[in-house]
Amino acid sequence: MKTLLAFAMVAAATGAHAQTTVTLGGVADAALRQVSNDGRGTERSLVSGGNATSRLVFRGSEDLGGGLAASFWLEHGLALDTGSPAQAAQFWDRRSTLSLASKTLGELRAGRDFVPSYSNWSRYDPFGYVGVGSSSNLISASPVGPIKSAFGSNPNTVVRSSNAVQWLMPSGWGGLEGGLMVAAGEGGTAATGQHKVVGARLGYAGDSFGVSAAHTRSTNDLTGDQAFTDSAIGAQLNLGFARASAAWRRFEQDAAAQTNLLVGAWVPLGPGELKLSWTRAEMSGSAAGASIDGNGARQWALGYFYNLSKRSALYGTLSHLDNEGAHTLAVPGGISGMAGGGSSRGVEIGIRHTF
Amino acid sequence: MKTLLAFAMVAAATGAHAQTTVTLGGVADAALRQVSNDGRGTERSLVSGGNATSRLVFRGSEDLGGGLAASFWLEHGLALDTGSPAQAAQFWDRRSTLSLASKTLGELRAGRDFVPSYSNWSRYDPFGYVGVGSSSNLISASPVGPIKSAFGSNPNTVVRSSNAVQWLMPSGWGGLEGGLMVAAGEGGTAATGQHKVVGARLGYAGDSFGVSAAHTRSTNDLTGDQAFTDSAIGAQLNLGFARASAAWRRFEQDAAAQTNLLVGAWVPLGPGELKLSWTRAEMSGSAAGASIDGNGARQWALGYFYNLSKRSALYGTLSHLDNEGAHTLAVPGGISGMAGGGSSRGVEIGIRHTF
Amino acid sequence: MKTLLAFAMVAAATGAHAQTTVTLGGVADAALRQVSNDGRGTERSLVSGGNATSRLVFRGSEDLGGGLAASFWLEHGLALDTGSPAQAAQFWDRRSTLSLASKTLGELRAGRDFVPSYSNWSRYDPFGYVGVGSSSNLISASPVGPIKSAFGSNPNTVVRSSNAVQWLMPSGWGGLEGGLMVAAGEGGTAATGQHKVVGARLGYAGDSFGVSAAHTRSTNDLTGDQAFTDSAIGAQLNLGFARASAAWRRFEQDAAAQTNLLVGAWVPLGPGELKLSWTRAEMSGSAAGASIDGNGARQWALGYFYNLSKRSALYGTLSHLDNEGAHTLAVPGGISGMAGGGSSRGVEIGIRHTF
Repeated sequence: MKTLLAFAMVAAATGAHAQTTVTLGGVADAALRQVSNDGRGTERSLVSGGNATSRLVFRGSEDLGGGLAASFWLEHGLALDTGSPAQAAQFWDRRSTLSLASKTLGELRAGRDFVPSYSNWSRYDPFGYVGVGSSSNLISASPVGPIKSAFGSNPNTVVRSSNAVQWLMPSGWGGLEGGLMVAAGEGGTAATGQHKVVGARLGYAGDSFGVSAAHTRSTNDLTGDQAFTDSAIGAQLNLGFARASAAWRRFEQDAAAQTNLLVGAWVPLGPGELKLSWTRAEMSGSAAGASIDGNGARQWALGYFYNLSKRSALYGTLSHLDNEGAHTLAVPGGISGMAGGGSSRGVEIGIRHTF
Repeated sequence: MKTLLAFAMVAAATGAHAQTTVTLGGVADAALRQVSNDGRGTERSLVSGGNATSRLVFRGSEDLGGGLAASFWLEHGLALDTGSPAQAAQFWDRRSTLSLASKTLGELRAGRDFVPSYSNWSRYDPFGYVGVGSSSNLISASPVGPIKSAFGSNPNTVVRSSNAVQWLMPSGWGGLEGGLMVAAGEGGTAATGQHKVVGARLGYAGDSFGVSAAHTRSTNDLTGDQAFTDSAIGAQLNLGFARASAAWRRFEQDAAAQTNLLVGAWVPLGPGELKLSWTRAEMSGSAAGASIDGNGARQWALGYFYNLSKRSALYGTLSHLDNEGAHTLAVPGGISGMAGGGSSRGVEIGIRHTF
Repeated sequence: MKTLLAFAMVAAATGAHAQTTVTLGGVADAALRQVSNDGRGTERSLVSGGNATSRLVFRGSEDLGGGLAASFWLEHGLALDTGSPAQAAQFWDRRSTLSLASKTLGELRAGRDFVPSYSNWSRYDPFGYVGVGSSSNLISASPVGPIKSAFGSNPNTVVRSSNAVQWLMPSGWGGLEGGLMVAAGEGGTAATGQHKVVGARLGYAGDSFGVSAAHTRSTNDLTGDQAFTDSAIGAQLNLGFARASAAWRRFEQDAAAQTNLLVGAWVPLGPGELKLSWTRAEMSGSAAGASIDGNGARQWALGYFYNLSKRSALYGTLSHLDNEGAHTLAVPGGISGMAGGGSSRGVEIGIRHTF
């Protein structure tokens, strides 16, 4: 009888072990969106990823003993509304990494991942850098400015870098967190999406307070010696009845700069959570031989997030974006061709399912 | 002893639970095909999906309580013979949806999926709209007619629509089934694969008899106000010794129409099932400034399907397609360049493995 | 009590069964590489797959009873450093097959897979045809020669063939192994990656000695009647303190030939294994109207492979490649534009994690 039982347990344990070799997960997120752009009218659409980008994740970890572990992470972004990959030529666009991690010395991670400055900005955005309320609506390579000067319309390092090696601080260093990232240019060009990157992030995360700073420097054939720099500082405070954040992020390239400010709040309200953000982006200096002073945009956003379960939620978001100067930024999903200085308004209601 | 046993059961149950978060499945189907086209000779090839399109499916469901469930479905079509995605730019071409479903009120489904008229036609095709015997051999955007007028060679809505929101009737409404689909054009064009779609399907499925009707209306920059309409009516009858089906489907756009007829049968025979179909497509009216009357094609197909197990089967199919007028339709896999009005013959034997 | 126990075992077994429907596995491999090319300087990069190509595998098998099994295999190659598929248009580039296998009669396999001559060469390469020490550094479609004549820069059959049907010998035929492959041209051209292929492999694998030979013949619109032939013979010997291999492989097309030689060794040393190889490629005859005699290259490589666990390993490899005549082959990852006859040197250290 004991023998039989032992066999049953082994079978069950084997099952459990096999599952942890590869863990399959992801997000399916769809929303109904309506965007109105000044002078252009209103557009309605079904969108993917109003609250979190739809994705599929394959990951796994192996305990090597002695506090060491090897792990991999492959993350594919997708447009649930059309069935297309988020990036046509880069299936695993969100993350593709291999790590060797020590509990005491930290993690060595190789591959494609977020740059330090992005990680240091998006965490303070209550809308997580997606949807009609995202701070990404103001961070774009379209307007003449440092991003466009440094990368053109090629892949840039405002969010992620390919070909990167990182060291990430272990947990347990008295609340400190952070890391270093280095990517070689590999002889490539901006057009091939290859940039030389050096970056670092350092932060403190306590129970009621957190603060962090990051700096990322990218060079390629378009920047020449005038590197694109991306600096970000942010803080958040847990007030008990709410959580508040504030962040500053500045892009510079040669004589052009873009300065971004963000103030955010998460407020438990009724059965869900209210989210608020105010974001501002301002250009300064000159780019492409002309002054870009006075160009910029402001956006406020208001959202409500309601958990149906641990894995599923309903959400609704409103946002309003006002351009300044010649800027024509807009909430995504509207009709293009707005005149400089116009306003864009967006609203969406959606479902986010984590699996 | 009971404690140990309980542990074993928990471990096993945990394993089972973890598996249901994401279910991985699909179809691998390969066949040897030979196609002869009048005046062009014979071509032999290894093909993917003679009985069912080769695919990989990631799906999952979460019980939200109270008869509610959230679920997702990502389905990738692939060419097993070459390793290529079925659609180069649309990895999840077959289906990518997020649903919120109630046992009593039905399912809200968002994303890319079959249009109502397609669902109402393919179910009556014994060959499931794939292979040498498929009714799809007669439904093509190549001949001048309503499909070509409405979509050109761009993605069309004859099978699926992106950007769609559906309501699907719950089971248990006295055998009734059906649903509604709406997709906004999203400001796009036929060239970007964005069409405005409105459709509905209603059917009755009993033990020995089923009947259903559907209508789907698509508009884009090519159709202008002269929408492409796709109407389908079908019925099936279980005779005990066999199952028989008949269906009618008509495409219209401006002055052009294509009318399709299908008669099918599934006959248990020996250790497997015999399948038969007769399909006819007729053009009428005018398109691109000229009459298309008298153009069309007829096809008959005969197949045998033999289950090796619950998940694996062998199959063989014969088909013969005769064009009328200027039509040059052909069984897929042959040598192109047949003259108008010619005949095409196909045969294939294959294996279908469901996983 | 026995009832409960039986239930536990069924639950565990059910879990195990469901898992074997689809098995998910793969390799994540990343390395830091430095390559120096004569007159061009040194390039550093993060690369994917220094020891084994990074990949994701979906596979499964169903026991049909009577010694028969149906199975599928989908294998996707990826660049872990950038998150891109290894082949943009062919997601399942490494293998996509459906099989029906008998324990006594062997396996029928349909789809995309290695050609017999490749399988008969790569197994004798201690570096497995990847990384700075790979014999693939000398087998390229770039130099004027039989590969370029037969395939241009289109997909070739030096490694794999699409649209193929194979018969693979069962195990247990007294140590014999091998198989046959046939692929129809399917009316395609070299530009569409469709080649007509016929190939065979036969070998003997004993405990201390193995020998095998293969021949693969490919034709397409570029070869005309002058087929591209790929012959390979190899042997390996287990000496106890080391394993040694030697192989010969010759490509011919019309008047052009490339002859490759390989000598390899695997030597257990300390906690890991030392690997050595010497490879030589020589052109002869004429191609594109000119003599190619005297063109070629030689390479030696030295590596050390250290297992961290059953699934994870560290490795380091050094290689040196010398061109002869007008050849400009190089270790991958260096700066292009080397003059004819130059040398290329590579070194890499990396991690390989199997999951």
